[in-house]
Amino acid sequence: MSVSLLEQLIEALRVLPGVGQKSAQRMAYHLLERERSGGKRLGQALAEAMEGIGHCGQCRDFTEGEICATCASGSRDRQLLCAVESPADRLAIEQATGYRGVYFVLQGRLSPLDGIGPHELGLDQLGQRLAQGEVSELIIATNPTVEGEATAHYLAQLARQHGVRPSRLAHGVPLGGELEYVDRGTLSHAFGSRLDM
Amino acid sequence: MSVSLLEQLIEALRVLPGVGQKSAQRMAYHLLERERSGGKRLGQALAEAMEGIGHCGQCRDFTEGEICATCASGSRDRQLLCAVESPADRLAIEQATGYRGVYFVLQGRLSPLDGIGPHELGLDQLGQRLAQGEVSELIIATNPTVEGEATAHYLAQLARQHGVRPSRLAHGVPLGGELEYVDRGTLSHAFGSRLDM
Repeated sequence: MSVSLLEQLIEALRVLPGVGQKSAQRMAYHLLERERSGGKRLGQALAEAMEGIGHCGQCRDFTEGEICATCASGSRDRQLLCAVESPADRLAIEQATGYRGVYFVLQGRLSPLDGIGPHELGLDQLGQRLAQGEVSELIIATNPTVEGEATAHYLAQLARQHGVRPSRLAHGVPLGGELEYVDRGTLSHAFGSRLDM
Repeated sequence: MSVSLLEQLIEALRVLPGVGQKSAQRMAYHLLERERSGGKRLGQALAEAMEGIGHCGQCRDFTEGEICATCASGSRDRQLLCAVESPADRLAIEQATGYRGVYFVLQGRLSPLDGIGPHELGLDQLGQRLAQGEVSELIIATNPTVEGEATAHYLAQLARQHGVRPSRLAHGVPLGGELEYVDRGTLSHAFGSRLDM
Protein backbone atom coordinates (compact mmCIF):
# COMPACT_ATOMS: atom_id res chain seq x y z
CA MET A 1 0.00 0.00 0.00
CA SER A 2 1.33 3.44 -0.84
CA VAL A 3 1.98 5.98 1.89
CA SER A 4 -0.78 8.59 2.12
CA LEU A 5 -0.15 12.33 1.87
CA LEU A 6 -1.06 12.66 5.55
CA GLU A 7 1.51 10.05 6.58
CA GLN A 8 4.10 11.71 4.35
CA LEU A 9 3.38 15.06 5.98
CA ILE A 10 3.66 13.64 9.52
CA GLU A 11 6.94 11.94 8.61
CA ALA A 12 8.29 15.13 7.01
CA LEU A 13 7.38 17.26 10.04
CA ARG A 14 9.65 15.10 12.21
CA VAL A 15 12.66 16.76 10.60
CA LEU A 16 11.96 19.77 12.86
CA PRO A 17 14.02 19.82 16.09
CA GLY A 18 12.17 18.51 19.13
CA VAL A 19 9.25 17.18 17.09
CA GLY A 20 8.45 13.48 17.53
CA GLN A 21 5.66 11.32 16.16
CA LYS A 22 2.97 12.68 18.49
CA SER A 23 3.79 16.37 17.99
CA ALA A 24 4.04 15.82 14.24
CA GLN A 25 0.56 14.28 14.22
CA ARG A 26 -0.80 17.18 16.23
CA MET A 27 0.82 19.71 13.88
CA ALA A 28 -0.48 17.96 10.76
CA TYR A 29 -4.04 17.78 12.10
CA HIS A 30 -3.91 21.38 13.32
CA LEU A 31 -2.84 22.62 9.88
CA LEU A 32 -5.42 20.50 8.05
CA GLU A 33 -8.27 21.43 10.37
CA ARG A 34 -7.63 25.08 10.98
CA GLU A 35 -4.68 26.51 9.07
CA ARG A 36 -4.69 25.34 5.46
CA SER A 37 -3.63 28.73 4.12
CA GLY A 38 -0.92 29.05 6.79
CA GLY A 39 0.27 25.57 5.88
CA LYS A 40 0.49 26.51 2.22
CA ARG A 41 2.41 29.68 3.10
CA LEU A 42 4.80 27.60 5.22
CA GLY A 43 5.35 25.14 2.36
CA GLN A 44 6.11 28.03 0.03
CA ALA A 45 8.42 29.74 2.54
CA LEU A 46 10.33 26.49 3.14
CA ALA A 47 10.79 25.83 -0.57
CA GLU A 48 12.05 29.37 -1.18
CA ALA A 49 14.28 29.51 1.89
CA MET A 50 15.94 26.10 1.37
CA GLU A 51 16.65 27.01 -2.27
CA GLY A 52 17.41 30.70 -1.93
CA ILE A 53 19.35 31.19 1.31
CA GLY A 54 23.13 30.92 1.08
CA HIS A 55 26.04 32.38 3.02
CA CYS A 56 27.25 35.99 3.06
CA GLY A 57 30.57 36.34 1.22
CA GLN A 58 31.97 38.53 4.00
CA CYS A 59 30.62 37.21 7.32
CA ARG A 60 29.31 33.71 6.41
CA ASP A 61 25.92 34.49 7.98
CA PHE A 62 22.78 33.27 6.19
CA THR A 63 21.58 35.60 3.47
CA GLU A 64 19.75 35.37 0.18
CA GLY A 65 22.07 37.86 -1.56
CA GLU A 66 25.83 37.99 -2.10
CA ILE A 67 26.39 40.07 1.03
CA CYS A 68 24.10 40.19 4.08
CA ALA A 69 22.29 43.35 5.15
CA THR A 70 24.64 43.97 8.10
CA CYS A 71 27.81 43.72 6.01
CA ALA A 72 26.25 45.84 3.25
CA SER A 73 25.11 48.53 5.69
CA GLY A 74 27.00 51.84 5.58
CA SER A 75 26.28 52.62 9.22
CA ARG A 76 28.20 49.78 10.91
CA ASP A 77 31.65 50.27 12.42
CA ARG A 78 34.05 48.08 10.41
CA GLN A 79 36.83 48.41 12.99
CA LEU A 80 34.92 46.12 15.34
CA LEU A 81 34.54 42.48 14.30
CA CYS A 82 32.60 40.01 16.48
CA ALA A 83 33.19 36.28 15.94
CA VAL A 84 30.24 34.01 16.85
CA GLU A 85 29.64 30.30 16.41
CA SER A 86 26.20 30.39 14.79
CA PRO A 87 23.68 32.73 13.14
CA ALA A 88 21.46 32.26 16.21
CA ASP A 89 24.26 33.62 18.44
CA ARG A 90 24.69 36.56 16.08
CA LEU A 91 20.96 37.29 16.30
CA ALA A 92 20.99 37.04 20.11
CA ILE A 93 23.84 39.60 20.34
CA GLU A 94 22.19 41.86 17.77
CA GLN A 95 18.90 41.83 19.68
CA ALA A 96 20.35 42.17 23.20
CA THR A 97 23.18 44.63 22.79
CA GLY A 98 23.63 47.95 21.05
CA TYR A 99 26.63 46.59 19.10
CA ARG A 100 27.21 48.59 15.91
CA GLY A 101 30.18 46.69 14.50
CA VAL A 102 30.13 43.76 12.07
CA TYR A 103 30.18 39.98 12.60
CA PHE A 104 31.98 36.89 11.47
CA VAL A 105 29.92 33.70 11.75
CA LEU A 106 32.08 30.58 12.15
CA GLN A 107 29.15 28.19 11.49
CA GLY A 108 30.60 25.79 14.06
CA ARG A 109 33.51 25.45 16.47
CA LEU A 110 36.90 23.75 16.32
CA SER A 111 36.35 20.03 16.81
CA PRO A 112 39.21 17.98 15.32
CA LEU A 113 37.55 14.67 16.19
CA ASP A 114 34.55 15.60 14.02
CA GLY A 115 36.86 16.81 11.25
CA ILE A 116 36.08 20.47 11.89
CA GLY A 117 39.31 22.44 11.65
CA PRO A 118 40.24 26.06 10.88
CA HIS A 119 39.40 25.65 7.20
CA GLU A 120 35.82 24.48 7.87
CA LEU A 121 35.25 27.57 10.06
CA GLY A 122 36.51 29.90 7.34
CA LEU A 123 39.46 31.01 9.47
CA ASP A 124 41.67 31.51 6.39
CA GLN A 125 39.05 34.01 5.19
CA LEU A 126 39.02 35.61 8.65
CA GLY A 127 42.84 35.80 8.60
CA GLN A 128 42.80 37.64 5.25
CA ARG A 129 40.25 40.06 6.63
CA LEU A 130 42.35 40.77 9.73
CA ALA A 131 45.45 41.19 7.52
CA GLN A 132 43.78 44.02 5.59
CA GLY A 133 44.25 46.26 8.62
CA GLU A 134 40.72 47.68 8.81
CA VAL A 135 39.78 45.72 11.94
CA SER A 136 41.16 47.01 15.24
CA GLU A 137 39.39 44.71 17.71
CA LEU A 138 38.21 41.11 17.38
CA ILE A 139 35.42 40.44 19.90
CA ILE A 140 35.37 36.69 20.50
CA ALA A 141 31.87 35.53 21.45
CA THR A 142 32.13 31.75 21.19
CA ASN A 143 30.17 29.66 23.68
CA PRO A 144 31.73 28.97 27.10
CA THR A 145 32.11 25.24 26.38
CA VAL A 146 35.35 23.28 26.06
CA GLU A 147 35.29 23.44 22.27
CA GLY A 148 34.15 27.06 22.31
CA GLU A 149 37.04 28.01 24.61
CA ALA A 150 39.54 26.18 22.37
CA THR A 151 38.13 28.06 19.40
CA ALA A 152 38.40 31.34 21.30
CA HIS A 153 42.05 30.61 22.12
CA TYR A 154 42.81 29.91 18.45
CA LEU A 155 41.02 33.08 17.35
CA ALA A 156 42.91 35.20 19.89
CA GLN A 157 46.23 33.91 18.54
CA LEU A 158 45.14 34.62 15.00
CA ALA A 159 44.19 38.19 15.97
CA ARG A 160 47.53 38.81 17.68
CA GLN A 161 49.40 37.53 14.60
CA HIS A 162 47.78 40.31 12.60
CA GLY A 163 48.22 42.96 15.25
CA VAL A 164 44.51 43.04 16.11
CA ARG A 165 43.43 43.32 19.76
CA PRO A 166 41.39 40.25 20.80
CA SER A 167 38.69 40.57 23.49
CA ARG A 168 36.09 38.19 24.86
CA LEU A 169 32.73 38.38 26.59
CA ALA A 170 32.87 38.73 30.37
CA HIS A 171 32.08 35.61 32.39
CA GLY A 172 30.48 35.76 35.83
CA VAL A 173 27.28 35.61 37.80
CA PRO A 174 24.24 36.22 35.52
CA LEU A 175 22.12 39.29 36.27
CA GLY A 176 19.12 38.40 38.41
CA GLY A 177 20.68 35.08 39.38
CA GLU A 178 20.88 33.91 42.98
CA LEU A 179 24.37 32.98 44.17
CA GLU A 180 22.95 29.87 45.80
CA TYR A 181 21.90 28.47 42.43
CA VAL A 182 24.87 29.57 40.32
CA ASP A 183 27.03 26.59 39.29
CA ARG A 184 30.40 26.14 41.03
CA GLY A 185 32.58 26.85 38.00
CA THR A 186 30.86 30.15 37.29
CA LEU A 187 30.90 31.23 40.95
CA SER A 188 34.57 30.33 41.36
CA HIS A 189 35.43 32.26 38.17
CA ALA A 190 33.38 35.28 39.24
CA PHE A 191 35.03 35.29 42.67
CA GLY A 192 38.52 35.07 41.18
CA SER A 193 37.84 37.88 38.68
CA ARG A 194 36.21 40.25 41.19
CA LEU A 195 36.42 43.95 40.33
CA ASP A 196 37.10 47.00 42.51
CA MET A 197 34.07 49.15 43.21
CA MET B 1 13.20 47.31 3.59
CA SER B 2 11.74 44.09 2.25
CA VAL B 3 11.33 41.07 4.52
CA SER B 4 14.06 38.49 3.99
CA LEU B 5 13.38 34.85 3.16
CA LEU B 6 14.69 33.90 6.60
CA GLU B 7 12.26 36.26 8.34
CA GLN B 8 9.43 34.98 6.13
CA LEU B 9 10.30 31.40 7.07
CA ILE B 10 10.41 32.18 10.81
CA GLU B 11 7.07 33.98 10.58
CA ALA B 12 5.53 31.11 8.58
CA LEU B 13 6.74 28.47 11.07
CA ARG B 14 4.74 30.20 13.81
CA VAL B 15 1.56 28.82 12.26
CA LEU B 16 2.47 25.47 13.88
CA PRO B 17 0.77 24.82 17.24
CA GLY B 18 2.95 25.57 20.26
CA VAL B 19 5.63 27.28 18.18
CA GLY B 20 6.50 30.85 19.16
CA GLN B 21 9.16 33.27 17.94
CA LYS B 22 12.07 31.54 19.67
CA SER B 23 11.18 27.97 18.62
CA ALA B 24 10.52 29.17 15.07
CA GLN B 25 14.01 30.73 14.95
CA ARG B 26 15.54 27.53 16.26
CA MET B 27 13.65 25.45 13.69
CA ALA B 28 14.62 27.73 10.80
CA TYR B 29 18.31 27.72 11.76
CA HIS B 30 18.28 23.97 12.33
CA LEU B 31 16.85 23.34 8.86
CA LEU B 32 19.23 25.78 7.16
CA GLU B 33 22.31 24.50 8.97
CA ARG B 34 21.71 20.79 8.99
CA GLU B 35 18.56 19.70 7.19
CA ARG B 36 18.17 21.47 3.87
CA SER B 37 16.96 18.37 2.06
CA GLY B 38 14.55 17.54 4.92
CA GLY B 39 13.29 21.12 4.77
CA LYS B 40 12.67 20.83 1.04
CA ARG B 41 10.83 17.54 1.56
CA LEU B 42 8.71 19.18 4.26
CA GLY B 43 7.87 22.10 1.95
CA GLN B 44 6.84 19.66 -0.75
CA ALA B 45 4.79 17.50 1.65
CA LEU B 46 3.00 20.58 3.02
CA ALA B 47 2.13 21.89 -0.44
CA GLU B 48 0.78 18.50 -1.54
CA ALA B 49 -1.11 17.79 1.70
CA MET B 50 -2.76 21.23 1.97
CA GLU B 51 -3.87 20.99 -1.67
CA GLY B 52 -4.65 17.30 -1.92
CA ILE B 53 -6.23 16.23 1.37
CA GLY B 54 -10.00 16.52 1.60
CA HIS B 55 -12.71 14.76 3.57
CA CYS B 56 -13.97 11.21 3.10
CA GLY B 57 -17.47 11.20 1.60
CA GLN B 58 -18.62 8.56 4.08
CA CYS B 59 -16.90 9.26 7.41
CA ARG B 60 -15.63 12.85 7.01
CA ASP B 61 -12.10 11.81 8.05
CA PHE B 62 -9.15 13.31 6.16
CA THR B 63 -8.28 11.51 2.96
CA GLU B 64 -6.81 12.32 -0.43
CA GLY B 65 -9.32 10.19 -2.33
CA GLU B 66 -13.13 10.16 -2.47
CA ILE B 67 -13.41 7.56 0.28
CA CYS B 68 -10.82 6.89 3.03
CA ALA B 69 -8.97 3.58 3.32
CA THR B 70 -11.00 2.47 6.36
CA CYS B 71 -14.37 3.09 4.68
CA ALA B 72 -13.15 1.48 1.45
CA SER B 73 -11.81 -1.58 3.25
CA GLY B 74 -13.79 -4.79 2.77
CA SER B 75 -12.72 -6.23 6.11
CA ARG B 76 -14.38 -3.74 8.48
CA ASP B 77 -17.67 -4.46 10.23
CA ARG B 78 -20.22 -1.95 8.91
CA GLN B 79 -22.72 -2.71 11.66
CA LEU B 80 -20.52 -0.90 14.18
CA LEU B 81 -20.18 2.87 13.74
CA CYS B 82 -17.98 4.89 16.11
CA ALA B 83 -18.52 8.67 16.29
CA VAL B 84 -15.46 10.72 17.28
CA GLU B 85 -14.83 14.44 17.44
CA SER B 86 -11.58 14.64 15.46
CA PRO B 87 -9.30 12.62 13.16
CA ALA B 88 -6.77 12.53 16.03
CA ASP B 89 -9.35 10.81 18.26
CA ARG B 90 -10.07 8.35 15.48
CA LEU B 91 -6.36 7.57 15.18
CA ALA B 92 -6.00 7.13 18.95
CA ILE B 93 -8.86 4.60 19.03
CA GLU B 94 -7.53 2.83 15.94
CA GLN B 95 -4.06 2.50 17.48
CA ALA B 96 -5.15 1.56 21.02
CA THR B 97 -8.07 -0.80 20.48
CA GLY B 98 -8.76 -3.74 18.22
CA TYR B 99 -11.90 -2.05 16.88
CA ARG B 100 -12.85 -3.46 13.47
CA GLY B 101 -15.93 -1.33 12.76
CA VAL B 102 -16.05 1.98 10.88
CA TYR B 103 -15.97 5.60 12.05
CA PHE B 104 -17.80 8.86 11.69
CA VAL B 105 -15.66 11.94 12.30
CA LEU B 106 -17.70 14.93 13.47
CA GLN B 107 -14.80 17.39 12.95
CA GLY B 108 -15.93 19.30 16.03
CA ARG B 109 -18.57 19.21 18.76
CA LEU B 110 -21.90 20.94 19.26
CA SER B 111 -21.25 24.51 20.36
CA PRO B 112 -24.20 26.79 19.55
CA LEU B 113 -22.39 29.90 20.81
CA ASP B 114 -19.66 29.34 18.20
CA GLY B 115 -22.25 28.67 15.51
CA ILE B 116 -21.49 24.94 15.42
CA GLY B 117 -24.78 23.07 15.18
CA PRO B 118 -25.84 19.64 13.89
CA HIS B 119 -25.38 20.71 10.26
CA GLU B 120 -21.72 21.72 10.77
CA LEU B 121 -21.00 18.29 12.29
CA GLY B 122 -22.59 16.48 9.35
CA LEU B 123 -25.32 15.01 11.55
CA ASP B 124 -27.82 15.10 8.67
CA GLN B 125 -25.41 12.84 6.79
CA LEU B 126 -25.06 10.64 9.90
CA GLY B 127 -28.87 10.49 10.23
CA GLN B 128 -29.20 9.28 6.61
CA ARG B 129 -26.57 6.64 7.27
CA LEU B 130 -28.36 5.39 10.40
CA ALA B 131 -31.69 5.39 8.47
CA GLN B 132 -30.28 2.95 5.91
CA GLY B 133 -30.49 0.20 8.53
CA GLU B 134 -27.00 -1.24 8.10
CA VAL B 135 -25.68 0.13 11.41
CA SER B 136 -26.76 -1.73 14.56
CA GLU B 137 -24.70 0.09 17.20
CA LEU B 138 -23.47 3.69 17.38
CA ILE B 139 -20.43 3.88 19.67
CA ILE B 140 -20.24 7.46 20.91
CA ALA B 141 -16.64 8.41 21.69
CA THR B 142 -16.85 12.18 22.13
CA ASN B 143 -14.59 13.78 24.73
CA PRO B 144 -15.79 13.86 28.36
CA THR B 145 -16.15 17.67 28.35
CA VAL B 146 -19.36 19.67 28.72
CA GLU B 147 -19.69 20.18 24.97
CA GLY B 148 -18.63 16.60 24.27
CA GLU B 149 -21.29 15.28 26.65
CA ALA B 150 -23.96 17.49 25.05
CA THR B 151 -22.91 16.16 21.64
CA ALA B 152 -23.05 12.57 22.98
CA HIS B 153 -26.56 13.17 24.29
CA TYR B 154 -27.70 14.52 20.90
CA LEU B 155 -26.08 11.59 19.07
CA ALA B 156 -27.75 9.06 21.38
CA GLN B 157 -31.17 10.59 20.65
CA LEU B 158 -30.44 10.52 16.92
CA ALA B 159 -29.49 6.83 17.15
CA ARG B 160 -32.66 5.91 19.06
CA GLN B 161 -34.80 7.76 16.49
CA HIS B 162 -33.44 5.37 13.84
CA GLY B 163 -33.68 2.26 16.00
CA VAL B 164 -29.90 2.04 16.45
CA ARG B 165 -28.46 1.11 19.87
CA PRO B 166 -26.27 3.95 21.22
CA SER B 167 -23.32 3.13 23.50
CA ARG B 168 -20.53 5.22 25.00
CA LEU B 169 -17.02 4.72 26.30
CA ALA B 170 -16.80 3.69 29.96
CA HIS B 171 -15.76 6.41 32.42
CA GLY B 172 -13.83 5.64 35.60
CA VAL B 173 -10.43 5.45 37.21
CA PRO B 174 -7.66 5.25 34.57
CA LEU B 175 -5.54 2.09 34.54
CA GLY B 176 -2.33 2.56 36.50
CA GLY B 177 -3.71 5.65 38.22
CA GLU B 178 -3.51 6.15 41.97
CA LEU B 179 -6.84 6.87 43.63
CA GLU B 180 -5.21 9.63 45.66
CA TYR B 181 -4.48 11.61 42.49
CA VAL B 182 -7.67 10.92 40.52
CA ASP B 183 -9.84 14.04 40.26
CA ARG B 184 -13.00 14.21 42.37
CA GLY B 185 -15.49 14.06 39.50
CA THR B 186 -13.93 10.92 38.06
CA LEU B 187 -13.64 9.23 41.46
CA SER B 188 -17.21 10.06 42.37
CA HIS B 189 -18.42 8.74 39.01
CA ALA B 190 -16.34 5.55 39.33
CA PHE B 191 -17.65 4.98 42.86
CA GLY B 192 -21.26 5.46 41.77
CA SER B 193 -20.88 3.13 38.77
CA ARG B 194 -19.05 0.36 40.66
CA LEU B 195 -19.43 -3.13 39.18
CA ASP B 196 -20.01 -6.51 40.85
CA MET B 197 -16.98 -8.79 40.90
